This record gives sequence, structure tokens and C-alpha cells, in this order.
Amino acid sequence: MALPVRTNGTYLFKFIQKFRSPKRFFCSGACSENKEPPGGGRVFSGIQPTGVPHLGNYLGALETWVTLQNQYPSVVYSIVDLHSITQPQEPPQLRSSILDMAASLLACGVDPERSVLFQQSQVSEHAELSWILGCLTSMPRLRHLPQWKMKSKQKNEGSVGLYTYPVLQAADILLYRSTHVPVGEDQVQHLELAQDLARIFNGRYGELFPEPRALLSATRKVKSLRDPSSKMSKSDPHAMATISITDSPDDIALKVRRAVTDFTSEVTFDPEARPGVSNLVTIHAAVARISVDEAVSQARGLDTGTYKTLVSDAVIQRLTPIREEIQRLRMDPAHLEGVLALGTRRARELAAPVLREVRQRVGLS
Amino acid sequence: MALPVRTNGTYLFKFIQKFRSPKRFFCSGACSENKEPPGGGRVFSGIQPTGVPHLGNYLGALETWVTLQNQYPSVVYSIVDLHSITQPQEPPQLRSSILDMAASLLACGVDPERSVLFQQSQVSEHAELSWILGCLTSMPRLRHLPQWKMKSKQKNEGSVGLYTYPVLQAADILLYRSTHVPVGEDQVQHLELAQDLARIFNGRYGELFPEPRALLSATRKVKSLRDPSSKMSKSDPHAMATISITDSPDDIALKVRRAVTDFTSEVTFDPEARPGVSNLVTIHAAVARISVDEAVSQARGLDTGTYKTLVSDAVIQRLTPIREEIQRLRMDPAHLEGVLALGTRRARELAAPVLREVRQRVGLS
Repeated sequence: MALPVRTNGTYLFKFIQKFRSPKRFFCSGACSENKEPPGGGRVFSGIQPTGVPHLGNYLGALETWVTLQNQYPSVVYSIVDLHSITQPQEPPQLRSSILDMAASLLACGVDPERSVLFQQSQVSEHAELSWILGCLTSMPRLRHLPQWKMKSKQKNEGSVGLYTYPVLQAADILLYRSTHVPVGEDQVQHLELAQDLARIFNGRYGELFPEPRALLSATRKVKSLRDPSSKMSKSDPHAMATISITDSPDDIALKVRRAVTDFTSEVTFDPEARPGVSNLVTIHAAVARISVDEAVSQARGLDTGTYKTLVSDAVIQRLTPIREEIQRLRMDPAHLEGVLALGTRRARELAAPVLREVRQRVGLS
Repeated sequence: MALPVRTNGTYLFKFIQKFRSPKRFFCSGACSENKEPPGGGRVFSGIQPTGVPHLGNYLGALETWVTLQNQYPSVVYSIVDLHSITQPQEPPQLRSSILDMAASLLACGVDPERSVLFQQSQVSEHAELSWILGCLTSMPRLRHLPQWKMKSKQKNEGSVGLYTYPVLQAADILLYRSTHVPVGEDQVQHLELAQDLARIFNGRYGELFPEPRALLSATRKVKSLRDPSSKMSKSDPHAMATISITDSPDDIALKVRRAVTDFTSEVTFDPEARPGVSNLVTIHAAVARISVDEAVSQARGLDTGTYKTLVSDAVIQRLTPIREEIQRLRMDPAHLEGVLALGTRRARELAAPVLREVRQRVGLS
């Protein structure tokens, strides 16, 4: 969460590739003092516990999480397990996926010293604020939001949890008086609900919540290696379509070698006309931390087959330390649980006074 | 709560006049052991903080609460403020109404030693379990439930809180692994949802929740003194229609004297043909703790006007100690808050292990 999207069955937060300076999103002088936490902004974001992320998650969302730690004074990241149960889950798998996700986030560079990293269901204030905000949300307001429209159609029928999902998202964000939320374009409507609820609450009970702003940017979308017209997805039926960040070097090399390209051997970047090879260029540039132009220039003189080796080497180089760190962390679940427990304590320290204030203003205490 | 009904704008739980022996509702030998808390049953009920109750609330619901304390080994009563905010509330009024209701319950005989009396919003597990149960509830399941059908029509549009109200009711009941819930006939559908959710949860995650059973009975309905075709209601526009349990003796005498009857001076009990005078007989029998036949026999030889004095005297006699006790308790809000705080602690002691178990079974921890 906050703003998960459906990607063929897994849900993750979409993030942005490049940020404008955070200052551009801050309040101007017109903002009341309590609209911004002291020190200039708090980022909130969440990710569903889908287990070990794939390369698309990593290059899209997780790298951004790491970057934001250096750009904002306060950063709150949640593994949003209460969101994940809006779809059926196998309990042991869910528990394991929570720890996989925690290990993956740490291995990718989320630093539990600089960010508050916690598991949503362990902080009761999320569900509590969600109930209160649900009393300020009209039923039709949710009917056309992406979450419900997409998922309830696929299943023919959705649960109450799925319908009210965006209200819990709004609670997640507002509970920390967050000022900034990284979102993909298709999640703007969900963030708008959080903004509306901040306004409605403030209007009825007095200024309390900043209106959280979107950190929007050009998105870097990694595509399926088997069908470059669709996004890379964990639940893709083609085993060769998706690179997990814990794939072995051999598996990575094989998947890239089998990646769908076309009959032109030269490497160019043209996502419309040549989606397959352009996807490889995108991946290469991202994992090697170079520009697309630079990647194309490195490919000059290589045919697609040879370029694939270059790309897979770059992916392997980038993912190997992450894979090893995840394996190391997963050997020690007690450590992971300790990290999450620390995050829970820190999240509660932020959330409890806000919910206390909400309760008082609403007249519950 | 659990099963509030609309009575012209105030919401209260409807209860039953006479109970069959609780044993009749207990599990037979076929029940698994963990379906019943040890000792034979737990009653849960809730009431919205509508302020000081009226005579109809008292004779309908509150007397029953008192009686149940002697009939069940474990009794949990909640002032359900999270339910009340599904309709707009003025915060200071809500806070005051919570304390008014607490004082009224104590004055009417709810004993915080024998029952767990607490304020719903102070026990976070209610909202938490409600989220989890919402993920097991299909959207259409709620569409035809009385709460939504009645209230959303009146307002043209309801909130998410109003729609999901019965899911929170189910959470209220199941959180204490309650076995019995007093309900009025029009609330049976809401209890059925709680029963369904107990079954669905048990089926998916293993036996945990007893299926709560309705304590149904003939209902004793006190009618408006101005329009005996409708129920006595706090929000009745006719000031003379409703007796508050804190009304002065003069006010009570005046209201009963002005009560609508008919042109027959003899007192008989015939609710269809003579609703006004029959309502007085019902009230008389209830406050004097005699049967309807006995009340009619005491009225023999009296005309309606003289009978009204007999009725108002009986009401005054019954309500005076309650009124005085409410006044005394309301002078000491710190005491009331202390009673509720004790109840909160005791409620959490019951609720926390159940929610912990739920979280584990669902895979959240």
C-alpha cells in the first residue's frame, strides 16, 4: 500500500523512476503549521507481502524506497498484510511471504535505522482509523476506484475488504500525517480519496491531516521477458517471463537468453516498434545505473544475442549481492522478526498520538 | 449493539421480555468443546450511546441486561460508540452521551463486578477483527440487511461505515467468543451474519468461534404516549410522547395524564382495538413487576383518568431511585470513566488472546 496496483495477480506499489526535488511538493507559505511535520515532510508507502520481489518490483518500487530515505527526513514503510487478505491467502504462505518481503526490503537497501519498517497488522491504529474514515466516506465514492473495478470483475464478486481497501489505504497514509506518497499514474484516484478524507476530516473536526501529495514521475516499467506488451509479474504463467531477485545466475542467463526480441539483430531503443529489445535496454540501463542512450551505445556493434549476454551479466552483477543477503537474512527469522518488532514500536509511537487526537476530536474520548 | 434497530432516529438494542432457560440454547453433546467457553455460555450485547434512555429502552433492553447477569456466567456489555458514528454526531454531545449511558446502565442495575461494561472504541480489537471479517464477507451479503436498507434510504445515501455496520457487529460478538446474543425479531438477519461469519472463519481456519445464538422471546414494546401505533422513541417530535428515565415526577405525571387513550372509560387490555390504554397497562405491569392480568384487575372499577394516576405513581416509584442514582453518578465523571476504564481492561483481557489466535490462523503473525 499505500497505492497498490494489480499486476497479473500480485499487488505492489508502483513507484517512480526519478523524483522532482521534494521541495517542489512542500507547502507554500499558505500552509498552516500543523500541516507538515517539523523538518519538512514525511513519506509513507506500503507493499503487499507477495514474497520475494521480481526484477520489475525492484527496479520500480524498491530502488525508489531506498532513494527516498536520503531525500526525506521521515520515511515510513509498511508491509501491508491487512491489504493482502482482501484476496484469499494461504496462512503459512502469507506468514512466510511477510518475512521474505522483509528480508528483500532489507537486502535491497531499506535501512531500518533511517526508515520505519513495520508490518501493518501489528499496529492496531490502522484498522481503527480506517473504521472512523469509513464513516466519512460515501458508498458510491469507492465504486469506481481501480482496486474494486479491476479485482471484483475478475472474481465476479468482491469482498467488503476489497471494496473498502482504499479507505484503509487512506488510513495508512493519514495515520502518520504523511505529506508525500509515491504513486504510479493508475493510482492517483486512490490517493485522491486520501486527500479528500484529509479535507473532510479537517473541515469537520479542525485541521489535523496534511493533504498527502503524489510523488509522480515518469515510470520505469519492466516488461515480461516472454510478452513485452505486458508488465513483468510474479504470477505470469510463463516461468521464463519473470526474473526473481533471488534467481541464480544460471537462471537469469537462461531467462534473458530466451527473452522475446525480433528479427533485427541490431540493438535500438524503440518501445513501440521493438518492445522486446527495448525492454532489455531498459533493464540494462537500470541495473547498470546508466542512461538508455549509454546502454544503446554500449550495444553498438553487438547483435541481439551477444547483447543478451551483456544484459544478463549486468543483471547478475546487480542481483548477486542482494540474493546472497536475502539468503543470509532468511536463515535468521528471529532477526527479521526483531527488525519488524522494532519498526512496530516506532510506528506506534507515531500513530498512537494521532489516533488519540482523532478519537478526542470525534468525541469518542 | 450487537443488533441495534432504528426507532425514529435513536438506535438501541432490542431485547426480550422473558427468556427461556439459557440451558435450552446451549450446545448439545454434538458441539465441540471449544465452541463454548468453560462454564456454560457468554452473553454479548451492546447499546449505542444515545444519552439517557427512555422508559421503553429501560423496560425493553436494560432490564434484560440486568436479568442476564444472573443467568449467565459471563456477560459482556458494550457502549458501542464506533457504531454510533455511522451517523453524524456532535463530538461534545457524543462524549457526554457516552457518560450518560454509562451512568444510566449502572443506575438501572448493570453491575460492573458481574458484567464487563466497556466502551467499544477503547478496545482496538473490535476494529481489527472487523477488518478481517470484512475480508470474508461478500459485498451483496450486506445489501439487504435492515441497517443499510432503512438508514441509507432515509438519507438517500449512506456511508461505508453504515454499510459495513453489521460486520462490526459480528466482530463485537465473535471477539468474545460469545454464545448468546439477545435480539429483537427485526435483528435476526444481523445475527445471522455473525453466525455465517463464525462458520466461514471456522471452516477456513479451524474451529474457533461458537455460532452465537439468539435469545429470542416475546417482545415487550412500549409505545409512544401520543401515538400508540408507534414505538416510544427518544427522537419523537412530541415532547409528551416519551418518558425519559430521568424525568421528574411532575413531568411523568403530566405525560401519563396527557397520554392518548379512547372514549371508553373502562380499562381493558386489547392492543389491537385499544392501543392507547393497553400501552398504559403494559407500562403499569412492567414497572410494577406484575402480570398484565394483574394490572387489569387492579384497574377494575377505575375509569381511565383515575387509572392514569395509578400508572404514573407506579412509574414514578420505579424510576425515582434510578433518576437519583443517575444524577449522583453524573456528578462524578471521573468515577464513571474509572468504571469504563476497568471494563476496558477486562474486555481486552478477553479480546486480546482471541484476536492473537485469529491473527495466527490467518497468517498475519
